[in-house]
Amino acid sequence: MPNPAPRVLIWNEFRHERRDETVKAHYPQGIHEALAAPLRAAGLTVDTATLDEPEHGLPEERLNAADTLVWWGHRAHAEVPDAVAERVKRRVTEHGLGLVALHSSHFSKPFVALMGTGCYLKHRVAAEKERLWVVDPGHPVAAGISDRIELDREEMYGEPFDVPPPDDLVFVSWFQGGEVFRSGCGWRRGLGRVFYFRPGHETYPTYHHPQIQRVILNAVRWAARPEGLEAPVRGRRDTPLEPLPPRS
Amino acid sequence: MPNPAPRVLIWNEFRHERRDETVKAHYPQGIHEALAAPLRAAGLTVDTATLDEPEHGLPEERLNAADTLVWWGHRAHAEVPDAVAERVKRRVTEHGLGLVALHSSHFSKPFVALMGTGCYLKHRVAAEKERLWVVDPGHPVAAGISDRIELDREEMYGEPFDVPPPDDLVFVSWFQGGEVFRSGCGWRRGLGRVFYFRPGHETYPTYHHPQIQRVILNAVRWAARPEGLEAPVRGRRDTPLEPLPPRS
Amino acid sequence: MPNPAPRVLIWNEFRHERRDETVKAHYPQGIHEALAAPLRAAGLTVDTATLDEPEHGLPEERLNAADTLVWWGHRAHAEVPDAVAERVKRRVTEHGLGLVALHSSHFSKPFVALMGTGCYLKHRVAAEKERLWVVDPGHPVAAGISDRIELDREEMYGEPFDVPPPDDLVFVSWFQGGEVFRSGCGWRRGLGRVFYFRPGHETYPTYHHPQIQRVILNAVRWAARPEGLEAPVRGRRDTPLEPLPPRS
Amino acid sequence: MPNPAPRVLIWNEFRHERRDETVKAHYPQGIHEALAAPLRAAGLTVDTATLDEPEHGLPEERLNAADTLVWWGHRAHAEVPDAVAERVKRRVTEHGLGLVALHSSHFSKPFVALMGTGCYLKHRVAAEKERLWVVDPGHPVAAGISDRIELDREEMYGEPFDVPPPDDLVFVSWFQGGEVFRSGCGWRRGLGRVFYFRPGHETYPTYHHPQIQRVILNAVRWAARPEGLEAPVRGRRDTPLEPLPPRS
Repeated sequence: MPNPAPRVLIWNEFRHERRDETVKAHYPQGIHEALAAPLRAAGLTVDTATLDEPEHGLPEERLNAADTLVWWGHRAHAEVPDAVAERVKRRVTEHGLGLVALHSSHFSKPFVALMGTGCYLKHRVAAEKERLWVVDPGHPVAAGISDRIELDREEMYGEPFDVPPPDDLVFVSWFQGGEVFRSGCGWRRGLGRVFYFRPGHETYPTYHHPQIQRVILNAVRWAARPEGLEAPVRGRRDTPLEPLPPRS
Repeated sequence: MPNPAPRVLIWNEFRHERRDETVKAHYPQGIHEALAAPLRAAGLTVDTATLDEPEHGLPEERLNAADTLVWWGHRAHAEVPDAVAERVKRRVTEHGLGLVALHSSHFSKPFVALMGTGCYLKHRVAAEKERLWVVDPGHPVAAGISDRIELDREEMYGEPFDVPPPDDLVFVSWFQGGEVFRSGCGWRRGLGRVFYFRPGHETYPTYHHPQIQRVILNAVRWAARPEGLEAPVRGRRDTPLEPLPPRS
Repeated sequence: MPNPAPRVLIWNEFRHERRDETVKAHYPQGIHEALAAPLRAAGLTVDTATLDEPEHGLPEERLNAADTLVWWGHRAHAEVPDAVAERVKRRVTEHGLGLVALHSSHFSKPFVALMGTGCYLKHRVAAEKERLWVVDPGHPVAAGISDRIELDREEMYGEPFDVPPPDDLVFVSWFQGGEVFRSGCGWRRGLGRVFYFRPGHETYPTYHHPQIQRVILNAVRWAARPEGLEAPVRGRRDTPLEPLPPRS
Repeated sequence: MPNPAPRVLIWNEFRHERRDETVKAHYPQGIHEALAAPLRAAGLTVDTATLDEPEHGLPEERLNAADTLVWWGHRAHAEVPDAVAERVKRRVTEHGLGLVALHSSHFSKPFVALMGTGCYLKHRVAAEKERLWVVDPGHPVAAGISDRIELDREEMYGEPFDVPPPDDLVFVSWFQGGEVFRSGCGWRRGLGRVFYFRPGHETYPTYHHPQIQRVILNAVRWAARPEGLEAPVRGRRDTPLEPLPPRS
């Protein structure tokens, strides 16, 4: 059953917003607060965390209290310790935490570990137009979006995107400079779900766009740990369920 | 977004229950009523329809009022007119109706048309044990089920099951006589979702089993038309979105 | 094991080339001969068939002699009898025939029947640029293609493409007018494989492009019935493989 | 295009065979030699490597010379350095090396890293019967196998198998003690392919079974780096392919 009121934890690197005037102008309270506002308005319980907080913002109890984790990182991926990335990965696969990885988080440690590939792509910052087309209009993450979203200025990401074939492909982007990109992709990983959503370069006001906010809300709900989740039984099971015939 | 209160239409052939004393003993009001009771108890709005009603129980307005259609048929598949099957198929692909096909409905016309394959399988009625294993414990259709469901007596269905590779594989059955079967499978078809759930031979009391009822409730919710569904734009689009350069 | 020397049957509607001077100029011997030449040059055994031949070019023995069927149709889809489409579908699902559907064949009867959906899309003829990006560079159908194919003038096809999520997504197109499209898609259907490849509007010389020819060669090989294919056992299997305990 | 003569590297832990008399009796030259013989008989070029060789048997030039790597490990997974596992992973995703992971290699470091999940399962050693059913009879890895393979005595592996949903599901096992398992699974990872094949507990003669040998041969061919593979272009692409309009 879907989880009607998922608890969200938004993790943000929160470096660009403090150092770059352009970014600060778009996101004066940080990208995490821009992401949090529409989720709060939709009635979700939202917590935020940033890289420079104690334990990199991800102490175990904080992570454990979340049904979906939203992640935005860019230049400081390497500062997230491997142990923290491993904690996130296990929380996804073993406890059903949802992960919504945004934009340059394709290279974040937790996302890369959950994919099993290098997550490479092409990129270009040229303030060009991006148009996200819905390719799976019945998918819950596309709810409320007509056939496309137009972004006046964004960074370009181009194929091939070095990820496993997505279990769910919801959006494909067209870029003015000539490229395409699988911009909205879902994967199942153990008990959890991962959604990657491409837009959100820090020098553009993308996260203030109502349709981008709607997709992120949809993705948070889609990825959230479902109600009624049962922990699977694993490991040695020495007693057969059925009697085995005697062996000579 | 998930649909919190899907409207369900349960369609049942309703022939065996009126002619065979064993079946009647298990399902005195018909299989459709046995399926309806736990869905009603869960708060869903449930309508039922049977083959011998006017328009084979599926007039357009009745179908259009449903978010998920549950289907049980066996010996009278051929009596469902092709036009009715086509109506169901289009309702799924073009309007996002969910279809939950039960047991011998693998050969029903709407299911076969939505699969694009022959839907063949092996089968044997020998009152043998079936054990349904959860293979995707994080899937919403497995919510509330521990690692397996045990059915004391069921018909055997064996692989290969001639369907396209499922987009979601949730249950795999073990049969006492030596076979296995992909018993719980989901597919996306256009705007809609299809779930096939194997158990439910009419001579056994399978649909009175609480865990089987739980899976069907989960499947009905999973397949239901999502809220906020947008009808996609299609057909001729003569005006480019971007200016095309002049051609000589 | 792959089939080293698949036998190919190319079926073409062959109407446009006889009636329209532009099309005739590009394909004086018909699109089927333009498709056949590079396959023959690669050492494959190639037969061709057209709609106006006896039995619509698809008598049973001719179909049965093929490992892969290539299909090009456009305005005369309705003239292919349902029985012929059903014959092709069963040959795919039950005997492992490969089907490579080109361009407007997305609406051909065999392709639609194998998909189980409506196969709708957006379209525009505006002589605009198409750029096909490889999104799965390790896929056999992309062999020999660098990261993209450029076509100077083509018809536009736009998303959402109303097909089941492809089992293999190999190419995504960028169009100058602003759209994207999943241009190279594979599906498994029973014993057979289906590949859809978008380019090839009749008023442009697309099938003379060496990289387009290479993709079609790759797709023919990928879809071909594999050597060593075993027909599956189906239907009633009354004798259990394992002894069943006595029942009271 | 398929690779007609893939070069195979078989890596084996090779500890059990030297220490346990039962294992030595089945595999006096080591499991790697038992695996190599039928591949050599089929005309493939085969090299073998073991854990206690220099550089753990996997120096870079040896790995680079292979199109498919077959892996068997059990108790000494931890002795494979992380750097070696990373080298294998990158060889798969960035260069198209195929990986065929056998039996307890579900917990080997390269396989776990490529999956992105924990790869847990249930297990029991009780010399019970395993029956592997073909669920995708048109798949190249099932070529030459009728509808099932019977193994008189094997270890049991049970669901849920904590791996991402396989891109290809070819075999599902039935176990006498009551469990099922997805025994033959394929995944795409970057340029490469991974196949997991369950049978092969060291205390049983499984790798001498002709049908098991056939499946491994099929899997090696299926996973092999395809001919004509092109390295994808990645990273910064500062120059747009299409002219961008001037920005104010």
